[in-house]
Amino acid sequence: MTSNKLSVQVAINSWRLAVERASKIFSSLTEGELLKEVAPGKNRLIYLLGHLTAIHDAMFPILGLGDRLHPELDAIFVSSPDKTGAQLPAVEELRKYWDEVNGKLLSQFATLSADEWLQRHYAMSEEDYAKDPTRNRLAVLLSRTNHMSYHWGQITLALK
Amino acid sequence: MTSNKLSVQVAINSWRLAVERASKIFSSLTEGELLKEVAPGKNRLIYLLGHLTAIHDAMFPILGLGDRLHPELDAIFVSSPDKTGAQLPAVEELRKYWDEVNGKLLSQFATLSADEWLQRHYAMSEEDYAKDPTRNRLAVLLSRTNHMSYHWGQITLALK
Repeated sequence: MTSNKLSVQVAINSWRLAVERASKIFSSLTEGELLKEVAPGKNRLIYLLGHLTAIHDAMFPILGLGDRLHPELDAIFVSSPDKTGAQLPAVEELRKYWDEVNGKLLSQFATLSADEWLQRHYAMSEEDYAKDPTRNRLAVLLSRTNHMSYHWGQITLALK
Repeated sequence: MTSNKLSVQVAINSWRLAVERASKIFSSLTEGELLKEVAPGKNRLIYLLGHLTAIHDAMFPILGLGDRLHPELDAIFVSSPDKTGAQLPAVEELRKYWDEVNGKLLSQFATLSADEWLQRHYAMSEEDYAKDPTRNRLAVLLSRTNHMSYHWGQITLALK
């Protein structure tokens, strides 16, 4: 394995671990448990399930991996905060979207070469990337892994 | 820049960003604010400040970067949960430790070559590393960045 390939593998492992940990919980909670807030007045678990799915889904175009599967989630789970009265998709639908999006992402990750991970991501212009080559696909992957960890820290507060 | 060096740079950037964000908050909160819990009955911010400092301090030996600066923090902030009645160090001491530990870590990170980041970490035997070369220093860095993001997600609940 080349050393760069190994670095990318480490980053993908870290992402996969975080997804697997969250999947285990999201698939096991009851509908009632998913309505719990992470702290009084804060986001409900069901909102975070939809939010993480939407943010992960948006990685397809950012990483140049094709179209989104569920762009319709943004209006409810990204542009709007929780508890605005919006009608949420059914829990079973949300769980299905989570599995679909994360399953497809992981299989797409495997199609990128180590060098392609270091190419610019698609939310960046060629010009800006030339100025700062660390703003590449790998940076997006680490940033989204941290984002997932951030909300995971909140989710665990509602579980214990 | 070699491609592997670039991968390591992306990972260090991600770590630094997380440390800077936390530093800004830890340095600006009053003593009273640091006594707030992230959610009812959960950890106080001051505990998380000490906890993160202790976990980061433990990275020196794990990464082969020398001795710890504050091993005494573990008894209070790692082996014990919050609010066990243990006498905590003064807030000003804790803030100083946070800056010391994270400042020294970041300058030590810069002394490692890209290839050294892919060598085994020191909590691993040569034998286990041979079986799984992804268990290297870089994996430790990503894991601790995720750990910081995890608690950061909790800390922000107490700030808003």
